[in-house]
Amino acid sequence: MTDAYIVGAGQSPFGSFPEETYRTLFREAYEAATPTDLTPTDVDEAFVGTLGVGGRQIGLAGPAVTEHVGLHGVPCTRVENACAASGSALRQAVMAVESGMADLVLAGGVEVMTDASAEATKYWLGVSGETEWERMAGTTFSGVYAQMADAYLREYDAPRRALSAVAAKSHANGARNPKAHLGFECSIEDAETAAVVADPLTLYHCCPTSDGAAAVLVAGEEAARSFDDRVRVAGVGAVSDRVGLFQRDTYTAIPATESAAETAYDRASLADPRVDLDFAEVHDCFAIAELLAYEDLGFCDRGEAADLALEGVTAADGDLPVNTSGGLKAKGHPIGATGAGQAVEAFDQLTGRAGERQLDDPERGLTHNVGGSGGAAVVHVFEAEGVTGA
Amino acid sequence: MTDAYIVGAGQSPFGSFPEETYRTLFREAYEAATPTDLTPTDVDEAFVGTLGVGGRQIGLAGPAVTEHVGLHGVPCTRVENACAASGSALRQAVMAVESGMADLVLAGGVEVMTDASAEATKYWLGVSGETEWERMAGTTFSGVYAQMADAYLREYDAPRRALSAVAAKSHANGARNPKAHLGFECSIEDAETAAVVADPLTLYHCCPTSDGAAAVLVAGEEAARSFDDRVRVAGVGAVSDRVGLFQRDTYTAIPATESAAETAYDRASLADPRVDLDFAEVHDCFAIAELLAYEDLGFCDRGEAADLALEGVTAADGDLPVNTSGGLKAKGHPIGATGAGQAVEAFDQLTGRAGERQLDDPERGLTHNVGGSGGAAVVHVFEAEGVTGA
Repeated sequence: MTDAYIVGAGQSPFGSFPEETYRTLFREAYEAATPTDLTPTDVDEAFVGTLGVGGRQIGLAGPAVTEHVGLHGVPCTRVENACAASGSALRQAVMAVESGMADLVLAGGVEVMTDASAEATKYWLGVSGETEWERMAGTTFSGVYAQMADAYLREYDAPRRALSAVAAKSHANGARNPKAHLGFECSIEDAETAAVVADPLTLYHCCPTSDGAAAVLVAGEEAARSFDDRVRVAGVGAVSDRVGLFQRDTYTAIPATESAAETAYDRASLADPRVDLDFAEVHDCFAIAELLAYEDLGFCDRGEAADLALEGVTAADGDLPVNTSGGLKAKGHPIGATGAGQAVEAFDQLTGRAGERQLDDPERGLTHNVGGSGGAAVVHVFEAEGVTGA
Repeated sequence: MTDAYIVGAGQSPFGSFPEETYRTLFREAYEAATPTDLTPTDVDEAFVGTLGVGGRQIGLAGPAVTEHVGLHGVPCTRVENACAASGSALRQAVMAVESGMADLVLAGGVEVMTDASAEATKYWLGVSGETEWERMAGTTFSGVYAQMADAYLREYDAPRRALSAVAAKSHANGARNPKAHLGFECSIEDAETAAVVADPLTLYHCCPTSDGAAAVLVAGEEAARSFDDRVRVAGVGAVSDRVGLFQRDTYTAIPATESAAETAYDRASLADPRVDLDFAEVHDCFAIAELLAYEDLGFCDRGEAADLALEGVTAADGDLPVNTSGGLKAKGHPIGATGAGQAVEAFDQLTGRAGERQLDDPERGLTHNVGGSGGAAVVHVFEAEGVTGA
C-alpha cells in the first residue's frame, strides 16, 4: 500500500467577501494549492467538504464547485461532517490514494456564511447539531460549548482567564497571518471584559462565521515524486459519536477526539505527542474547545489545560505551539473549509512557507477537526520530507 | 489489495410513512442488511448518503442516523452527490475496504420527502440542480428531463410510446415488489393518457418522491468469509460532470454515465454488457433517463433504446432485464436511499432472495446511479459467488 503525501495546499483569505461566490473562493484555493502547470485531467478524484454553502447548493455541492476549476470528468464527491467536513474530505483523499483507486486527489472545502441573516445562520448551524432535543430546546452551539466551559471551569476550579489566554494567543498568531479573518491582536483583558455571548463565554471566546475556501492536493508515492514539496500523511484517525452533548458521558472532554487521536497516533507510530509533535492546529470554535483538545489529544493530563494556556506552553514561542495560523478563533471558521485550512497551515509550516509565523524547522505536526460539539472528529499527523517515524 | 464483497443488504419499504422518522427508517434498513448477531463494534466504518433529510438534519447527518443503530464510536461520514448519494457512499465503502483502512463497512442512505410541501420539495430538489441558471430560470428536474426527452424523440424520430413502455415495465416489476412505493400495474395506455407534467413527460413517466432507507454491508475478503452470502464488487466507476444540462454538449446522452461505466467495465473485465450482464438496475428518475441509460451503458447503439423498450428486451422475461425492483419509477425514489437500494436488488437477485421477481440464476448485474441531470454518475458491477471474470 502506498503512503499518501500532501504535495500542494492553499487557501483563499478567510473573512467576509460579499463580492465573491463559493465558486470563486474555491477557485482561489484550488489555484493556491496546485502548480500552474497542473491540468485538471491530471487529477484522479476530488472530495469537497461543505455544509451546503448556506443553502445555495445543497445537492451536487461537490461537482458544482469542482466544475468551476475544470474538474468535470473527475469523480467528485461531497463529504459532510458539519465543521469536520473538509478534515473528513482530506481523510477520504488519503483513503482513495491508499486504495489504489487514485494517484492524485484534490481535497478541499468551502463555505459562504457572512451574507446570511442571523436567523438563517442560526438555522443552518442549528440543524448541524442535535436537532431533536438541543435545537428544539433553543440551544445554539455557543450554548452547548458554554455548558462545556462551565463544567470544565467548575470541575477543575480553573479560572475563566485561561479561556481568555487562549483567545489572546490565537489573535497574536492571527495578526501575523495575512489570510486571517480577524487579523488583529486582542489582550487577555479585552477577552475578559467583552460582552458575554453565553456565560462564561465572551465574544472573544467565540470564533466568527466566515467565508472562505481551502484545498489540499494528495498524492501517492509515485505521483508525489513529480512535486517539489512533499509532506507525508503519517497517520489519520476519525470517529463519530452521539451528536448531542447531553447524550454523552462527559461534558469536560470530547471522546471522539481521544479516539481519533489514538488511531492517528498508532498509525503514525507516535508514542508521546508532547515529545513527538512540533505543532498542532486544533479545532477551537470556542476557547473551551481548545482547552479540551489539549487534554483529549494528550498534550497534558486532565485538568492541566488551563495551565498550558496560561503558562504560554502553546504560544508560538512555547514548547508546543498550537494554532499558529490563528485558529478558528482569529483565522476564521468557514465551516466546510476549516479542516482543509488546518492542513494548509501544517503544509506551510512543514515546508517553510509560513512567513512571519514560521516555526524553527518543525518535523511533525497535527491537525484536529471536530464536527458539531463532538459528533465527529478527525485527526491527521503530518511529517516533513525526510522525517521517518516519531 | 483485497476485493470487496457485499455480505448483507436490506431496505425499508419505500413509500409515504408519516409515522416514521429518518432514524427509524434507517434502523429498519440496517436491521435488514445486517445479521442479528452483528454487534455495532464489528463495523469499522460507515458512509451515509442523504440530501439532508429535507432540512431536518443538514450537518452531521451521517452520525445522526448511525448513532441510532448503535454505531457511535465508528468513523461515519455523510456522502452527497444529490440522487447519487448512496451510490457514492457504496463506492466509498469499497474504497475504504480496498485501502485497508477498514474490513467491514456499512454504506447506506436515507431520505424523508413526503411530508414536505410542494414548495419545500421544489426548493430542496432545485438546489440540487444547477442553481445559477436552470433553477433561477424556473426549470425543475421534470423540466430538465423533459428537454432531454424532447430532444431524444426528435433526434431519433422515436415514439413517446417508448417512454410509456418503460413506465409500464417498471410498474409490472414494482407490482411484484412488496417494498415498492407504487406497487401497482400501469398500462402503456395509462401512461400515454395521463396528465402531462412537462411535455412530453406525463405523470407515469416521472418517479414519485418517497420516504425510505437502504443499507449495504461491504467486507474485505477476510471479513467476508464469516458471512453466508457474498456478492463480489467486480467493478466500480464514478465521474462528475457539469451540473447544468445546458452546459453539456449533448441533450441525448448522459456523458457521466458513459464514463463511469467505462471505468467499471474495465475494472470488472467486462467486454460486452449485452452479453456479460444478466440484469441491471438503472437510474430511471424519468422514463427518458432509462432510455438514455440503455445507450450510455452500452446495452444498445445510439437511437436503439426505444426499440429495446418497445420490444420487451429489458422486461423481466427479456434478454436483459432492467429494473426488476420496479426502479425509481415504481419502487420509489427517496433520494439518499436510491443508490444503496439498487444494490439491495442486485444482492437479492444474485443470492436468490428476490422472491416473485427472482431471475433465473443471474451471475452478474449492474447498478447505475445518477446525480441531478447527470452532474454525477456511479456504476457498480456485481458478481455472484463463484463467478470469476466476465
